[in-house]
Amino acid sequence: MEEKIVIGFEYGSDSARALVVNATNGEILGTAVKYYPRWNMGLYCDPKINQYRQHPMDYLEVLEDSVREALSKCPAGTAEKVIGIAFDTTGSTPVFTDETGTPLALLPEFFENPNAMFILWKDHTAVKEAAEINKLCKEWDVDYVAYEGGVYSSEWFWAKALHVLREDKEVRNAAYSIVEHCEWLPAILTGVTSSKDIVRSRCAGGHKAMWHPKWGGLPSEEFLTTLDPLLAGFRDRLFTDTETAEKPVGKLCPEWAARLGLSTEVVVAGGAYDCHMGAVGAGVTPHTLVSVIGTSTCDVMVAPHKEVGHKLIKGICGQVDGSVIPGMIGFEAGQSAFGDIYAWFKRVLEFPLKQIIGKTELIDFNTRAALIEEACNHIIPALSAEAEKIPPSESTVIATDWMNGRRTPNANQLLKGTITGITLGTSAPQIFRALVEATAFGTKAIVDHFINEGVRIDNVIGIGGIALKSPFVMQTLSDVLNMPIKVCKTDQACALGAAMFAATAAGVYDKVEDAIAAMNSGFANEYTPNAENTEIYTNIYEKYIKVGQFTEKKLFN
Amino acid sequence: MEEKIVIGFEYGSDSARALVVNATNGEILGTAVKYYPRWNMGLYCDPKINQYRQHPMDYLEVLEDSVREALSKCPAGTAEKVIGIAFDTTGSTPVFTDETGTPLALLPEFFENPNAMFILWKDHTAVKEAAEINKLCKEWDVDYVAYEGGVYSSEWFWAKALHVLREDKEVRNAAYSIVEHCEWLPAILTGVTSSKDIVRSRCAGGHKAMWHPKWGGLPSEEFLTTLDPLLAGFRDRLFTDTETAEKPVGKLCPEWAARLGLSTEVVVAGGAYDCHMGAVGAGVTPHTLVSVIGTSTCDVMVAPHKEVGHKLIKGICGQVDGSVIPGMIGFEAGQSAFGDIYAWFKRVLEFPLKQIIGKTELIDFNTRAALIEEACNHIIPALSAEAEKIPPSESTVIATDWMNGRRTPNANQLLKGTITGITLGTSAPQIFRALVEATAFGTKAIVDHFINEGVRIDNVIGIGGIALKSPFVMQTLSDVLNMPIKVCKTDQACALGAAMFAATAAGVYDKVEDAIAAMNSGFANEYTPNAENTEIYTNIYEKYIKVGQFTEKKLFN
Repeated sequence: MEEKIVIGFEYGSDSARALVVNATNGEILGTAVKYYPRWNMGLYCDPKINQYRQHPMDYLEVLEDSVREALSKCPAGTAEKVIGIAFDTTGSTPVFTDETGTPLALLPEFFENPNAMFILWKDHTAVKEAAEINKLCKEWDVDYVAYEGGVYSSEWFWAKALHVLREDKEVRNAAYSIVEHCEWLPAILTGVTSSKDIVRSRCAGGHKAMWHPKWGGLPSEEFLTTLDPLLAGFRDRLFTDTETAEKPVGKLCPEWAARLGLSTEVVVAGGAYDCHMGAVGAGVTPHTLVSVIGTSTCDVMVAPHKEVGHKLIKGICGQVDGSVIPGMIGFEAGQSAFGDIYAWFKRVLEFPLKQIIGKTELIDFNTRAALIEEACNHIIPALSAEAEKIPPSESTVIATDWMNGRRTPNANQLLKGTITGITLGTSAPQIFRALVEATAFGTKAIVDHFINEGVRIDNVIGIGGIALKSPFVMQTLSDVLNMPIKVCKTDQACALGAAMFAATAAGVYDKVEDAIAAMNSGFANEYTPNAENTEIYTNIYEKYIKVGQFTEKKLFN
Repeated sequence: MEEKIVIGFEYGSDSARALVVNATNGEILGTAVKYYPRWNMGLYCDPKINQYRQHPMDYLEVLEDSVREALSKCPAGTAEKVIGIAFDTTGSTPVFTDETGTPLALLPEFFENPNAMFILWKDHTAVKEAAEINKLCKEWDVDYVAYEGGVYSSEWFWAKALHVLREDKEVRNAAYSIVEHCEWLPAILTGVTSSKDIVRSRCAGGHKAMWHPKWGGLPSEEFLTTLDPLLAGFRDRLFTDTETAEKPVGKLCPEWAARLGLSTEVVVAGGAYDCHMGAVGAGVTPHTLVSVIGTSTCDVMVAPHKEVGHKLIKGICGQVDGSVIPGMIGFEAGQSAFGDIYAWFKRVLEFPLKQIIGKTELIDFNTRAALIEEACNHIIPALSAEAEKIPPSESTVIATDWMNGRRTPNANQLLKGTITGITLGTSAPQIFRALVEATAFGTKAIVDHFINEGVRIDNVIGIGGIALKSPFVMQTLSDVLNMPIKVCKTDQACALGAAMFAATAAGVYDKVEDAIAAMNSGFANEYTPNAENTEIYTNIYEKYIKVGQFTEKKLFN
């Protein structure tokens, strides 16, 4: 039997990863990571106003470079055996295009205009527009956010599009359509030359663009123009249908086949968001929450239609038929900060290093720089080592995990974080432990929310940087959830998930579940809850809920 | 006119200060500070159980040394012109004595027994006994804590005495009477040889020993023996009357005149607590709050009888006729942590210095030590410099100041501190600023409490380390209180206040007010509120109150 090779791609926030995989058994043959060059230089972003834009050229350059580098690490002749390619990306990360489907920033007159670039998921410039969408949805006879958790976010498609239309007259005049990052890459590779021919992602459309068959696709023209007449016409120029990602969108066009060194017979699968394909890469099954645990978390679940029926789960990031595994309802939830909270505390502790040691005259410049770098790198490991020694029964500091607002359950970006129970004896490791517990409580709030809404969860699969690197955090999470947690062997679940979609699209498997069964990485670790700790945490969790309710009702509204 | 010299003494928590002062104009001629030698070595203390004991030998050794050193710095012949001496001390700091009034720890068989030593104000071993006293007061027909703010503290006289009687059979069997530190020093210097002859302090007795003329002095024998039969007999062996501190208790006995190199004609004044004499040293007048701002705060007020009448101010540390200025009601309040909160945050930030830089191999041992010392010393100045630059309108972090519980208003030692409003962008200086604001809010809560109870406050005088050293903290305090704050020129207000009492006792002045007028140090600084900031802080203060109410009701009870 001839070897069948696929390429899975993950376009993350800072870099893209290409994974060359044996489609039969999931063996990884070669991989390459490339950072976005302009993004890496801080171009087109303004953190003060939460503006985060990415240039389409960044995406194209790393695509070619990473495929060639990943293939170069594989046995000779691998390129010829590649039969499929698939992409997942961050999202909602939309861009305005012209009639040909070309992002405006690829046109000379818009090359340096951030409003003509992809608007990264974490761009929060459209807070006002999101509020207007929410207000109008409540007044309208159809609740278009019903399948997106009931609240529209400033991180999503329509809010961002409307914001840019209002802000930028030049873009407004040139804009014909809008495309998501995960839809644009397959279109580019298959040589699409009209925006109308771009295959639209079920995952992106269903979770972030208020697309649903119940109301015939996107929200009505009347709704959109009531929101703002500037949106007039976009609905018709956008799309009515969406497709699940295991369906081929076409084959490699000659230009890209040449650029990547692959055959024009390579099948290109549909696109989807990173965490959704990541859940597939991690081996998602019904009743298992797959949690991508990094700077923030993205939690993905699937459930058969018969279990969910027509039930609407409020307060999550959406439920979409086929957004994860075709034929099942995919759910998305998540915490807007997880590892970012540990990184925040690290930055606070860096103050004496950067502000004082950085200016000392006791040692020379090079020693200072080396010392500060060493110390900064050791803060989180040292905190973890000390925090782990504190018995949960002595964990009397209580924190909430809302330092970046709350995504789910029940999105509220106005919320802020709290640390309480502080005494004059409270140490840095005690605070760190409370922050770790707070992030675990945040996950528990999501799990409890699903269960309360009738979606059963029996166990958790962890993927992402923290899942693999921090046994202390994962054990705390298991204790807090009172659930076993398995951690995937691969640290590249999102790209591996894309490879599974590529293999299915290329016909190696009939359905995604078969690809999961054959290609999964297995588990590196399993954490089981410690009953004694679970009981203690049940108690602290009640206080976490109380602190949360108080700050939400009385302080941050 | 012959020069008249007095010596004012302050016995603080760690050291004693002698101040040689011109009684006519308050000019400081010489000063000396001596640290308690055994205390400095950490003897007889156990921070784990909050046991803090001081050896009477420590007090006697520094007395002789500091007087001789302070006089040695004065012009020749100064010793001969000394006409008065007075002491203030920490309190409540009681010790068990034998029938002669000798602290038990000065007897050979008790020399090393911490229970035979002075029990420092901050010793909290008697938490249980304080609770019993509070319970019995509520049940009794007389509320003996009515003039002590309504709640008896574990830091006070009877709780400590009862705790030691229960703990230590040897001390129990040898104990005849009990004396406060501020009463013992004048007794020693005037050659008292019977515990019954010790002149008792109005300040100590009224604020901490439930002494009040309304019930004929100390609580009844029935009350005390109901509390515990171990207390039987002490009331009769203690005292019925107390005296204000401007009254002479006698003249220097020959032994101590010789040891100090002074005449036997030197008048020894009565004793009082440090903050009370400190308020006099700072120039207290009605409607002025004198705040001693250091690791914690002690706030002292005076008001004429006709203003207060028979009104009881609940929730403070007491109201005692003559405890500050004879003929006026003296009030005491305070925060159980102020500068200690800044020091706590400093310790948190020291983590990477001590845990990581302390172990680095990039630099040698000596450089490490020098670097860490330099960095630790600069943390608070660097935080202050950065925090001061943040406009109050951008001060979105909110903290409470209860990291060491709350002393006033309404004592509650179970309370803990909170920091809320944290985002991923919150910096160490922003947190520090919130902590500074929180300590100022704690003062405002006390000021508002007095005002609500009908005691007018127009302005504040600040003394103590923070008042002189931190313009940022003092300006914040003025803005928060919306009151002018004057800061005394002297950093030795407590010892200067003692000198004023010495001068009055020696007959230089008819009354303490005259001594204040002639001997005060004047003011180094005056802070006036910035109206714009005051308005912003009014808003944040409302949130501080909300956070406090929530944590008190729902978390820490």
